[in-house]
Amino acid sequence: MSTDRWVWYIEWSTPRDAHLFAVERVVYRGESKYQKIEIMDLAEVGRALILDGKIQSTLSDEKAYHESLVHPPLIAHGAPRRVLILGGGEGATLREVLRYRSLEEAVMVDLDEKVIEACRTYLPEMSMGSFNDPRSKLIISDARKYLEEAEDIYDAIVIDLVDPMEGGAAQLLYTEEFYRLVKKHLNPGGIMVTQATSPSFTLDVFTTIHNTISQVFEKTSAYATFIRSFDGLWGFVTGSDSISPAELSAEEVDSRISSLLEGELEYYDGTTHTGLFSLPKPIRKALEKEERVARDNNPVYMPI
Amino acid sequence: MSTDRWVWYIEWSTPRDAHLFAVERVVYRGESKYQKIEIMDLAEVGRALILDGKIQSTLSDEKAYHESLVHPPLIAHGAPRRVLILGGGEGATLREVLRYRSLEEAVMVDLDEKVIEACRTYLPEMSMGSFNDPRSKLIISDARKYLEEAEDIYDAIVIDLVDPMEGGAAQLLYTEEFYRLVKKHLNPGGIMVTQATSPSFTLDVFTTIHNTISQVFEKTSAYATFIRSFDGLWGFVTGSDSISPAELSAEEVDSRISSLLEGELEYYDGTTHTGLFSLPKPIRKALEKEERVARDNNPVYMPI
Amino acid sequence: MSTDRWVWYIEWSTPRDAHLFAVERVVYRGESKYQKIEIMDLAEVGRALILDGKIQSTLSDEKAYHESLVHPPLIAHGAPRRVLILGGGEGATLREVLRYRSLEEAVMVDLDEKVIEACRTYLPEMSMGSFNDPRSKLIISDARKYLEEAEDIYDAIVIDLVDPMEGGAAQLLYTEEFYRLVKKHLNPGGIMVTQATSPSFTLDVFTTIHNTISQVFEKTSAYATFIRSFDGLWGFVTGSDSISPAELSAEEVDSRISSLLEGELEYYDGTTHTGLFSLPKPIRKALEKEERVARDNNPVYMPI
Amino acid sequence: MSTDRWVWYIEWSTPRDAHLFAVERVVYRGESKYQKIEIMDLAEVGRALILDGKIQSTLSDEKAYHESLVHPPLIAHGAPRRVLILGGGEGATLREVLRYRSLEEAVMVDLDEKVIEACRTYLPEMSMGSFNDPRSKLIISDARKYLEEAEDIYDAIVIDLVDPMEGGAAQLLYTEEFYRLVKKHLNPGGIMVTQATSPSFTLDVFTTIHNTISQVFEKTSAYATFIRSFDGLWGFVTGSDSISPAELSAEEVDSRISSLLEGELEYYDGTTHTGLFSLPKPIRKALEKEERVARDNNPVYMPI
Repeated sequence: MSTDRWVWYIEWSTPRDAHLFAVERVVYRGESKYQKIEIMDLAEVGRALILDGKIQSTLSDEKAYHESLVHPPLIAHGAPRRVLILGGGEGATLREVLRYRSLEEAVMVDLDEKVIEACRTYLPEMSMGSFNDPRSKLIISDARKYLEEAEDIYDAIVIDLVDPMEGGAAQLLYTEEFYRLVKKHLNPGGIMVTQATSPSFTLDVFTTIHNTISQVFEKTSAYATFIRSFDGLWGFVTGSDSISPAELSAEEVDSRISSLLEGELEYYDGTTHTGLFSLPKPIRKALEKEERVARDNNPVYMPI
Repeated sequence: MSTDRWVWYIEWSTPRDAHLFAVERVVYRGESKYQKIEIMDLAEVGRALILDGKIQSTLSDEKAYHESLVHPPLIAHGAPRRVLILGGGEGATLREVLRYRSLEEAVMVDLDEKVIEACRTYLPEMSMGSFNDPRSKLIISDARKYLEEAEDIYDAIVIDLVDPMEGGAAQLLYTEEFYRLVKKHLNPGGIMVTQATSPSFTLDVFTTIHNTISQVFEKTSAYATFIRSFDGLWGFVTGSDSISPAELSAEEVDSRISSLLEGELEYYDGTTHTGLFSLPKPIRKALEKEERVARDNNPVYMPI
Repeated sequence: MSTDRWVWYIEWSTPRDAHLFAVERVVYRGESKYQKIEIMDLAEVGRALILDGKIQSTLSDEKAYHESLVHPPLIAHGAPRRVLILGGGEGATLREVLRYRSLEEAVMVDLDEKVIEACRTYLPEMSMGSFNDPRSKLIISDARKYLEEAEDIYDAIVIDLVDPMEGGAAQLLYTEEFYRLVKKHLNPGGIMVTQATSPSFTLDVFTTIHNTISQVFEKTSAYATFIRSFDGLWGFVTGSDSISPAELSAEEVDSRISSLLEGELEYYDGTTHTGLFSLPKPIRKALEKEERVARDNNPVYMPI
Repeated sequence: MSTDRWVWYIEWSTPRDAHLFAVERVVYRGESKYQKIEIMDLAEVGRALILDGKIQSTLSDEKAYHESLVHPPLIAHGAPRRVLILGGGEGATLREVLRYRSLEEAVMVDLDEKVIEACRTYLPEMSMGSFNDPRSKLIISDARKYLEEAEDIYDAIVIDLVDPMEGGAAQLLYTEEFYRLVKKHLNPGGIMVTQATSPSFTLDVFTTIHNTISQVFEKTSAYATFIRSFDGLWGFVTGSDSISPAELSAEEVDSRISSLLEGELEYYDGTTHTGLFSLPKPIRKALEKEERVARDNNPVYMPI
C-alpha cells in the first residue's frame, strides 16, 4: 500500500470497527442547535454530508439510497397526490417525490434548517431546485411534534430521519406509538416507508422496526440494498393497510415507472426492485423470528 | 465513540480507503513461498483468513461467499458428477461441492499447501472434513499449469482464485486464453464459474471478466451479493455453452436444492438466487457497455 | 508513504491524539485480576510490555527509563544498603538497584504476579536474573497497603508504579498522605524517587507531584528525559530531607558511577545527569508556579 | 478511550510508525511548484504548517525549535551584525535573528514564496511582522544556487531547510560540498548552524551531518531538544573555525541574553542551553563513532 494522503475522515461503525476515507477537501463545517454539520469531498465516495461524524449521503451513491427509499412505496401506490416527508434535509428525497406526475403537494418537515441551507449551498445536486418547486412546502419542526399537532392527511409518508442512536432523541421516531401517529395522517389507501438502519450491522434493529410496523399496519414489506458509503446493506420498511410493493413484478414496476414518473431514474427499475425485495435467506429468517416491538418506554437503538 | 481495543488490522481497499478491524487474537502467522498467511479473530467479523493483508474469508460470512460461488452453477447443471476446483484453499468451496448427491469426484488444485494446512488446523469449520472425503482429490499445483498439462474433463469448474492484483501473477488467471483452457476441460454440457472481484470497488474489472468470458462461451451470467468482510458487493460470472443459472426461477431453485443436495444451506435458496441475479441498474448498464477483453498481453487487474 | 504492514497497535495518548505502531508479533496476551497484559514486538521500538493498552517499557529504550529512575537518587545517596522498590514488575528497576556494591537487600513490592511472570518469560532482558539474586526479596502486595502495615526502614525507596489515571486506584499512590507513608520507611538520610508522568503531555500532573512531595520532604528535585516509546519527555521527582541529586556535578557523577556500581551503564553518566536536571525553561517556570497539593480526597490524575 | 473527533491528520514518521492528530480545522490548503502546503488547527498541538504531509512547526512548540536553532550560535558569536538565513519560510527564524541589538542586516533566502505568503496570512504569530523590519531582506531563490552565485559575507548563517528525504533535492543541502559553499560566505570569526534531523528517529543522519560539518570547520557542536509535534528529540549542529556554543556556561548564556537581546525568550536560557548540549550517552557515543561524510555523489537522507 502506498498513499499520498494525510487528512482522513474516520467513521466508527462500532467501537471495534472503523472506516478511513481520505479527505480531498473540507468544504463546510458548521454546528446547529442539534448537531455538527460537515460537508467534505472524500476521495473514494465523493462529496459527503456528515452529521455528528456519520455519513448521511454522498454524491456517488445517494441515488441508490433515495430512489430505493421513495419509489417502491410510491410506485406501489400508483397515484400519489399528497406526500409527507419527515426528515430528508438534503432535499434528494423531495426531488424523487416531485417526479410523480400525479403529485399536487409535497410537505417536508425537517428539524434542522442549517442542514438544509448547507446542502442547498454545497450539495445542490441533491435537491436540484426542489425547494423552489411550487408543489413543495418546507416546515421546520420536530417530526413527532408535527404529527401530534397537525391534522393533514397524505397518500404517502416517507420517513428519512437520522438513525436511532443509543441515548438519542431519534429513538422515539421508531416506536409503535410513533407509527400509530404516522397512520393517523395516512389516507385509507395510503402507505408509509421508513429507512430502517442496516441489516448488515444492526440486523436486530432492522427486524425490530419491521415487527413494530407490522403491529400497526395490515401489510408490511422489508427490503434492502447495498450502499457503498455505508459499507453495507441498508434497509427500508413499508407499512400500509392495503398496499405492498413486494407484490409487484419487475415488468409492472418498469411499466409504472414510464407512465407515472418524469425523467430517467439512475438506480431503480424493475430488476433493481426485484433485487431489493429478494433478501438473503438469513435476513428473511431473522425477520420471521423477530418478536420484539419497540415502544416509547423501551425503544430500539443502535449502540454507540 | 469509545473503544477498549488497541490491536487493529488495517486493510487498505485502495490507497485512499481503509478499514480498521479490532483484533481479538492473532491465531496464526506464517509465510509460504507465495504469500504471508495470517489467521486472526476479528471482533466484528470473526475468525478470518488473511493473505498478504487481504481478508479472504471469515467465519461470519463465508457461507454467503462460498454458497453463492458454488450453487448457482451446480444447481443449474443439475447433476454434477465430476467437478474441478481451482484455488479454494480454505476447503469451503470443496465442502459445498461435496453436498451434491450426484458427485463422484471433486478435484481441487491449489498452489499453496501451507494455506490449506493452516486452514485445516485453525479454521476446520471451513472444510468440515472435506479433504478426508473419499470423493476428494487434492493436487498442489499452479492452476494454469495444471490446465495446460492435464487432460481430464469435468461437468463443472469452480474458480476460487486470488484477485488479479496489479503486477501479480494472478492476472493471467482472468484472461481469454485462460478461459479457453478452462473450456477444454469441460464436458459439452458443462459450466464454469469464477469469482470476479467487486462490482462496488472495481466495477470495470468485474465487467471485463464478464465480457472476456462471453468471448469463450455461448451463455454467461453475472451475479453478486454483499459480503460484509469485503465491505461491498462481490461478483461472480458463469460461462457455459448450454446452461445459464440466471434463467432459473426461485421455485425451481428451491425444488432442486431439496432433490440434489445433502444438508441445509445457510445463505442460498430460491429467493437469495433471485436477489443474486437481480443486479442494480448501474451494474447492468456497465455490463452491457463493456467492450474490453482481458488477454495475456493486456490483462485486467485491480490497482494496488 | 508505503507500508507492507497491516497489524497495528494504536495507543491513544489523549482522545485527540494517537500513535500507530506496526506489530511484528503478538508474543503474549493475558489478563490478571488487575489488568490486560500484552507483550508485542513492535517494528520501530522492539519488544514492548503493554498494560491495558499503554506501553510500559520497550527493549529499545527501557535503559533510558530505568537508569534515569534509579541512579540519580542512589548515586546521590552514595552507599545504599537497603532499597525498597514499589512496582517495577519488569524487574529492570531491580536490576539497576542490584548494581550497587553496597547493596545488602532489595525488597520489591508489586501487585501483579502475572505481569512479573510474563516479563520473566518473554522479556528476560529486563530482569537479567535479578529475581534470583540472593539479595532480592519479592513481595506480592498492594504498595500502599504494604507501607501501611510493614515496619521496615530503607536507605532509598524507588517508586515505579503505573500512572494515576482518571478514576483509577493508582491515584492514591501520588498523594501527600502516600508520600508521608513513604517517608516513615526511610532512614533520616534516605531518599525516595518516583516516576512522575510526562511533562510533555501532562505537565500539571508532573508539577503537582513535585509540589506534593515538597510538602513532605526538605529537598526535592525534578528531572526528565526523552523516552521514544512514550513519544515525549518522562519526568521523575526525588524527595529527601538531606540529599538532592540536582546538586551533583557531571564529574562527581562519573566518579561515583565507577566507584559504586558494577558493570557499565548504557544511558546514564555525568553528562546525561546534567541533561536530566537541566529542564527547559517553560517546565521550570511551571514547577515554580505550581501550588496544588494532591491529597487522598483530591488526587491528581491523567485524563482518560 | 473515547473521542468525539472524526477528521484526523495522519503523519507517517516511517512506513511502520504513524501519529494521528485530531483536526479542529483545515485553515489553508494550497500547492506551489515545490510542494503541497497546508495549515491546520490540530487539537493537541495547535495551528500547524504542514508541507507534503510533514509538520514543519506548530504554534504550541515553535519557540522550542526556533529559539534552539538561532540562539546558541548567535549568543556564542556575541555580536552578529549580518546574518543569512537559508529557508525558514514561517519567518520565525528571522524573528529570532532580529532580536539582536547588534544586527544590521538579516538576509533570508527561501525557495517557496507561496509558503511565506501562507504563513504571513494564517500564522502571523510566527513572523510577528519580521518581514517588514527595515533590516530584513527576502530573496526568493534556491539556497544552494544562491550560495554559488552570491558573494556576500556574514557573521552567521542559520540553515532552516527541509529534511533530506530519500530521493529529494534537499539531500544536496547537507553535503560537504554544500558546507564548503556556506563557509565561503562566513567571516573568519563567523558561525553556521543547521537543523540536523532527529537523533531519536534518524540518529545516523544526525551524526553524519555532524561528521560532515567537522570536515569543513575547526569546531563543531551538536545539540538537541524535545519537540512535541515531531514526537522526538530534534538535533542541530554548529560549525565554525573559532566559536563553539558548547563551551558557554549557563551563567554566561544568561548574562549574554540580557545584554544582547531585545525581549524575553520563552524557551531558551542558561539552563536550557546546558540541557541542549548535555546529550544522552548513547547519542554522544554515536557522534564519536561516526565516520561517514555526506558528499554530493553519496548524500545522507531519511528513508521514506
